[in-house]
Amino acid sequence: MNRRDFFVKSAAAGAAALLIPEMAGAVRSKYSPSGVVNAPNGGAVVLFQGDSITDAGRNRSLEDRVNDFEMLGRGYPLYAAAGLLAARPDRDLRILNRGISGNRVPDLDKRWERDCIDLKPDLLSILIGVNDYGHTRGSNYDGTAERYLSEYRRLLERTRKMLPGTKIVICEPFLIHGGTVLDDSWEPAFAGYRRVAALLAAEFNAGFVPFQEVFNAALEKAPAGYWGADGIHPSTAGAVLMAEAWLKTVPSEL
Amino acid sequence: MNRRDFFVKSAAAGAAALLIPEMAGAVRSKYSPSGVVNAPNGGAVVLFQGDSITDAGRNRSLEDRVNDFEMLGRGYPLYAAAGLLAARPDRDLRILNRGISGNRVPDLDKRWERDCIDLKPDLLSILIGVNDYGHTRGSNYDGTAERYLSEYRRLLERTRKMLPGTKIVICEPFLIHGGTVLDDSWEPAFAGYRRVAALLAAEFNAGFVPFQEVFNAALEKAPAGYWGADGIHPSTAGAVLMAEAWLKTVPSEL
Repeated sequence: MNRRDFFVKSAAAGAAALLIPEMAGAVRSKYSPSGVVNAPNGGAVVLFQGDSITDAGRNRSLEDRVNDFEMLGRGYPLYAAAGLLAARPDRDLRILNRGISGNRVPDLDKRWERDCIDLKPDLLSILIGVNDYGHTRGSNYDGTAERYLSEYRRLLERTRKMLPGTKIVICEPFLIHGGTVLDDSWEPAFAGYRRVAALLAAEFNAGFVPFQEVFNAALEKAPAGYWGADGIHPSTAGAVLMAEAWLKTVPSEL
Repeated sequence: MNRRDFFVKSAAAGAAALLIPEMAGAVRSKYSPSGVVNAPNGGAVVLFQGDSITDAGRNRSLEDRVNDFEMLGRGYPLYAAAGLLAARPDRDLRILNRGISGNRVPDLDKRWERDCIDLKPDLLSILIGVNDYGHTRGSNYDGTAERYLSEYRRLLERTRKMLPGTKIVICEPFLIHGGTVLDDSWEPAFAGYRRVAALLAAEFNAGFVPFQEVFNAALEKAPAGYWGADGIHPSTAGAVLMAEAWLKTVPSEL
């Protein structure tokens, strides 16, 4: 077995141990009565933010229903959440997914008050960038890696100011090479966006999940069709690899 | 961390290593053109069979669509399948769920040709029994543990005869004590059904997944409401514990 294992013993234990001291006693708010867990002194709030890779077919009409299967979608947030919930039954975790397909950093910015700040997450995980680049290819969007950097940095500054106690995890945007919608011209350009994400993780002392490395290693075992046919959106197997990496990386950074 | 971890390194590795020799080269059949994987020399077929705990809201209109998210449902087969798919990208696994809510052993028997024999599974996992007992409480079903034993044994004999090369995993039926639909009168009676499942696993040299032990241990960490509110149907967290146990048990028995 290799790093492709799903919910690894040490990762789950580490995540739990490291999340607890920071997450205890945070103030809760903003959960609808439909929430599965709604007690005033509940546990930590974990929020997944991003684009379609995070959205992953979630039921948006249930967006306040913490830990709900349909709310979580069918992507990496589901498997990451499921693993955390099973590993930490004592923590009463409240996990939410607010990813929206097609989003770039400026789209997150527009909805950040409602879809992040107001939720007071104890742990905020962001995966954004593939559309910041992708939309420059045929969508009349004049994005650049520099623009991605400045807009993403501003979003993180705003987040740190409004949510000083929130732990942040920045997920590396990635391509699954060989995917059907990609061609050779994506890679040299997209590398710049990946570097921005890594840079900002260091700058904001955030966690960093190296998803590109995860998929590069996976492609040595099976082709893109297995991990995410179009090269952008992971399969179930690909989503599990992401959840595994997310669970491994989070504890060492928080 | 304890045995409540999700997809544990050694389990996934062991499962893969032990499944491979047995599963190579099996004859495929019966997959509709909608199947995600349809190559004539594909990998092993894994079939989950059972009642509502296995069914778990699966989309029955996609029943031949191997490895499909909606086909798998939202219960333990999803997490077990996801973990296997991520761990064994080289195996081209074809995983199916044919659990149906409300089923008892005689219900499986009626649809066994179509929903098991014809699918030629390389690995067959069965979780059945809670309705064999539960339906005796108010549904005018004259079931007993003895009847469960004789009917289940006959089903397994038929399976061994028709599918001599198929590896079988028998999952222990379980109760999540403290669940809303249970009362104290369930337990002494239901224990007999659990013993039958264990007995048959030994008799047929099948794998055995001790789900009752899994949930008993889980209840030391959080109440039934967390693992499966009604006492019968696991939550996402409960389903993950089941998948973990399933993945751990399978390799040592196959």
